[in-house]
Amino acid sequence: MSLLNKFDRTSPAVLGQDLHKFATCLYPICRSITGDGIRQTLAIIQKRIPLQTIAVPTGTQVFDWIVPKEWNIQDAYVADSSGKRVVDFRKCNLHVMNYSVPVHATLPVSDLRPHLFTIPEHPDWIPYRTSYYKEEWGFCLSHNEMLTLHDQEEYEICIDSTLADGYLNYGECYLPGQTTDEILISCHACHPSLANDNLSGLAVATALAEFLSTCDLRYSYRFLFIPGTIGAITWLAQNKEKVRNIRGGLVLTCLGDAGGFHYKKSRQGGSEIDKAAAHVLKIEGRFAEILEFSPYGYDERQYCSPGFDLPIGCLMRSVWGSFPEYHTSADNLDFIRPLQLAGSLRVCAAVLDVIENNRSYRNENPYCEPQLGRRGLFRSMGGEAGGRASGEEMMARLWVLNLSDGINSLLDIAERSGISFPRIKDAADLLFKEQLLSLIP
Amino acid sequence: MSLLNKFDRTSPAVLGQDLHKFATCLYPICRSITGDGIRQTLAIIQKRIPLQTIAVPTGTQVFDWIVPKEWNIQDAYVADSSGKRVVDFRKCNLHVMNYSVPVHATLPVSDLRPHLFTIPEHPDWIPYRTSYYKEEWGFCLSHNEMLTLHDQEEYEICIDSTLADGYLNYGECYLPGQTTDEILISCHACHPSLANDNLSGLAVATALAEFLSTCDLRYSYRFLFIPGTIGAITWLAQNKEKVRNIRGGLVLTCLGDAGGFHYKKSRQGGSEIDKAAAHVLKIEGRFAEILEFSPYGYDERQYCSPGFDLPIGCLMRSVWGSFPEYHTSADNLDFIRPLQLAGSLRVCAAVLDVIENNRSYRNENPYCEPQLGRRGLFRSMGGEAGGRASGEEMMARLWVLNLSDGINSLLDIAERSGISFPRIKDAADLLFKEQLLSLIP
Amino acid sequence: MSLLNKFDRTSPAVLGQDLHKFATCLYPICRSITGDGIRQTLAIIQKRIPLQTIAVPTGTQVFDWIVPKEWNIQDAYVADSSGKRVVDFRKCNLHVMNYSVPVHATLPVSDLRPHLFTIPEHPDWIPYRTSYYKEEWGFCLSHNEMLTLHDQEEYEICIDSTLADGYLNYGECYLPGQTTDEILISCHACHPSLANDNLSGLAVATALAEFLSTCDLRYSYRFLFIPGTIGAITWLAQNKEKVRNIRGGLVLTCLGDAGGFHYKKSRQGGSEIDKAAAHVLKIEGRFAEILEFSPYGYDERQYCSPGFDLPIGCLMRSVWGSFPEYHTSADNLDFIRPLQLAGSLRVCAAVLDVIENNRSYRNENPYCEPQLGRRGLFRSMGGEAGGRASGEEMMARLWVLNLSDGINSLLDIAERSGISFPRIKDAADLLFKEQLLSLIP
Repeated sequence: MSLLNKFDRTSPAVLGQDLHKFATCLYPICRSITGDGIRQTLAIIQKRIPLQTIAVPTGTQVFDWIVPKEWNIQDAYVADSSGKRVVDFRKCNLHVMNYSVPVHATLPVSDLRPHLFTIPEHPDWIPYRTSYYKEEWGFCLSHNEMLTLHDQEEYEICIDSTLADGYLNYGECYLPGQTTDEILISCHACHPSLANDNLSGLAVATALAEFLSTCDLRYSYRFLFIPGTIGAITWLAQNKEKVRNIRGGLVLTCLGDAGGFHYKKSRQGGSEIDKAAAHVLKIEGRFAEILEFSPYGYDERQYCSPGFDLPIGCLMRSVWGSFPEYHTSADNLDFIRPLQLAGSLRVCAAVLDVIENNRSYRNENPYCEPQLGRRGLFRSMGGEAGGRASGEEMMARLWVLNLSDGINSLLDIAERSGISFPRIKDAADLLFKEQLLSLIP
Repeated sequence: MSLLNKFDRTSPAVLGQDLHKFATCLYPICRSITGDGIRQTLAIIQKRIPLQTIAVPTGTQVFDWIVPKEWNIQDAYVADSSGKRVVDFRKCNLHVMNYSVPVHATLPVSDLRPHLFTIPEHPDWIPYRTSYYKEEWGFCLSHNEMLTLHDQEEYEICIDSTLADGYLNYGECYLPGQTTDEILISCHACHPSLANDNLSGLAVATALAEFLSTCDLRYSYRFLFIPGTIGAITWLAQNKEKVRNIRGGLVLTCLGDAGGFHYKKSRQGGSEIDKAAAHVLKIEGRFAEILEFSPYGYDERQYCSPGFDLPIGCLMRSVWGSFPEYHTSADNLDFIRPLQLAGSLRVCAAVLDVIENNRSYRNENPYCEPQLGRRGLFRSMGGEAGGRASGEEMMARLWVLNLSDGINSLLDIAERSGISFPRIKDAADLLFKEQLLSLIP
Repeated sequence: MSLLNKFDRTSPAVLGQDLHKFATCLYPICRSITGDGIRQTLAIIQKRIPLQTIAVPTGTQVFDWIVPKEWNIQDAYVADSSGKRVVDFRKCNLHVMNYSVPVHATLPVSDLRPHLFTIPEHPDWIPYRTSYYKEEWGFCLSHNEMLTLHDQEEYEICIDSTLADGYLNYGECYLPGQTTDEILISCHACHPSLANDNLSGLAVATALAEFLSTCDLRYSYRFLFIPGTIGAITWLAQNKEKVRNIRGGLVLTCLGDAGGFHYKKSRQGGSEIDKAAAHVLKIEGRFAEILEFSPYGYDERQYCSPGFDLPIGCLMRSVWGSFPEYHTSADNLDFIRPLQLAGSLRVCAAVLDVIENNRSYRNENPYCEPQLGRRGLFRSMGGEAGGRASGEEMMARLWVLNLSDGINSLLDIAERSGISFPRIKDAADLLFKEQLLSLIP
């Protein structure tokens, strides 16, 4: 079935509003790689899609890593001598370095400074910092806020957090298709109040799962909502038998900003998902760019580690780290836009539409062209009066007939002809109906 | 033997005049895919080359197609109420839609209009229209002529044509060579008074066959003069055993206009004929362009259908459809030029010269260079006094020696060295005479 | 071991002075492909490196060639009627066409002219001419000098040379490494007072051998100092069993001028030395260019003849023949520069550093990334506090881990990542020490 035909029944504006509203609802939660924040987040996602949540205890060995202690935080502040909070976690959860160990003390500014993080070149923005694997504490604040601290003054600092044995949580949504071969869609769910990285990915992935659950699917789909790095490693370590079914996949993130699309290829580089994404972006995406694989980035790092070498790429609009708002308080709900979110969801659907419908056919009349005119399927580009197909529809039919030798897939034909996959697929459907093609099983 | 050496004994001006004269002689005939016009055309070609003519009866099944009824036409006109012919087939055979069924009636203009075809953007030109496979009738006229028709007036229309059982005719000229492996040269012969498409192809193909018939040939050559589409399909359907011998070929058309050369690759893309044509056009043709295969165009569509997948490309100057005169009365004898026709014939000869002479050799002194100086074959590029070869002749010898490992062909060597094929061939001939090379059988 | 670390302990200025001094010492000698000049040259090289000298008698058959008679020269001049030498070999050994047969006569200018060689477009420069394989005599002089000869006058000409049975001499320096697989470094040693072509090559090759002799080497190295063409042919003919050990090599010449680097690929084109040289030049060399193989040039012509097809390329700065000073008296000691010579030596060391250290490893934790943070090897590009590695060091580690699948070599990883080979090698060393990698034997 055509995912796109079905998808395009909803208006982008309506879709976009829905996606942005969902991100807005998740925005205030103080997420981290473990703890209550990610559990609350999974619970909200679970309201929309059939999500199984998994809890892996602290201390579990996952390949070379160990599931860390669970981190939770109630409150945190820096207060001046009058007791006034000059830095206040309750106002913005980015103010605390994520995974900070508890601390409560009164310190002169000079002792405090090594624990303060700012962005001098953007003096109004609060940076986002973490220290997951090294026991540290710190505050993040705007550079202007820091300038108001008095050298002579002592400040009360408090981080009311806990770091204790607990669980690493993640969510998994499995949509069964006609085969157990599956497509993996993965996004991290561990960033606090940051919108493009990573709420845009959560919103798009949730909506995509919701949409696919209404479709009659060829492949099975697995959606992972996981803490970055340790979550992907944990899932891979505990699901080796599922890994064998993975035919391809996408890591989704940074999908709400105003930038053009970027698809970062899998380590394999030439897999079906790589070709499908490149094809869709060439047709759909103005300013779209295909990036070579590199071993840094999001969880494609783990999926594409040499032992797995899965055909999983990463779809983004602006690339992480390339926009100044990245990992700062400026990556907020204004930075992501409804129509951009909707457009990202559509590109995901278009890529999966290729994967779902990429079949190979055999031309049943391989000697010369079949007489399309007799079947009402011909439109001359010269002076011959004929059917009502557009020039491109006509060309799509001729390309499908010419290249359907049982080896070329429809995606191969779309690439070689320069015609969009949906149009090639329509041509194949029509020719199949006319018994001019047979399907290669 | 070198085809080019032999070819170049005639002056391009003389050749060009001859080619243009031949096209002029064919121009007035009202050709179609069947009927007297194509038979007259074949008879004229037969005066110059040994042409076998074949007649295939109406109703013969050829793959998915059926040989259509034969069409002939005596006269056609649109006359006003005074009996004056305002559209007159006797003045220009494009005035009747080719394959129009007979009609004789008197009609108001409003009923006539759906059967009238013009080109508003070129108001003086008459379009060329056909309706081979749908029984229709129509008149083609200049837009200015149409504007003179009076809305209130009734017009007498007459198409004195017949559509009846008969034959599809085509011509075949076979020139035997040392092997039964053959090269196919195909051109359509079904267009009425249109010069570039397709009289230029008929003239060049006839002259090429005439020229090759005087040469001692390695390969056998088969020239086909056939109605477009149905003719190629008919030939392929009835000559499957001959198809097995085809090593390569060219479809010839649009070879007389002022444009640069275009070679459209075969579906295989990397066959010997594709490489030979690309090499020749790179060396010979300023502004030449190599086009990828596409399943639309001339009869390469049939030869390159997936069941045959023959290495047959298409040589043109301007590409069909890319010049405004295409399929109009402006594609006339002024549109094709003697020197352009002669240049096209020379390019054909140059491509076939590559095919005829593309051998592989083995260097009999593969360890280090042989001492060319001792044999009078060396010319230093530095300060060494030596023989009288030009720098490029010298380099051609070194390239042939270096790459003649039994695998590289002379065309491979020409491509890698960037030296023209004839020069590489001359070097190989010289080195072979000196027993420095042996021929790979 | 890293050749470059060791190499970089000497200052380029000091190195450059040493190289230029060595060239200066060799400059005055009148070398040819045989005779005292090349023997003196080898004796000077022998003072610096362990050089074995080999003498092959005149008349020895070497493949298609025969070792020629030995040429020696004492004096030569053209004197006017007053006995004044107007052309004097004692002032510049280029004045005599190299390999001139003895002659002593008094001739009118008209009889002399066919034996005089000048460069009209550079009227102050003396050309360099040879006639090794055809018994001839001649004088080379500046065009201005020639213009002073009087048409009416007779001149005494004298070439006091001998051409007699003797020897062809060459030098061979073998540096044994851990394996008998060897790298061949070859340079011609047959040009008289010409600095860039070829003293720069002799100086760089000698210094390179001297440097490598202090290193603990993986491969064995063989340096050849040989007469051009006939020397390479002689060595190949008499050392077929050594040829089998050659894994790669470089022909060195024209390494002292101010131009950017050029590496001419071996006939194979994609061998390890070709990739190593291309990688080094991309990283090191501004304005560096990679040239395709061609069967003309220096002794790579022989090494890359089809019977041997050795992976031996040619490293130059300016390409022979592309600079006006080539093969003239203007290719003198001012034309080559100390810093350029030192830079050339460094590029050689860098290429061999790649060859020496190009290993393949296997990631021992191929499933997901190993936890580098725990080992102090991680530096986040995002907000994670971590180790002290630079961004590129960090990326080098991730690339090595990701691509170390036992197939990719470190050079492959350097190429795919765009990170310099030494940095990739450092990362591999570190990861190997941490037991994250195992070496593929």
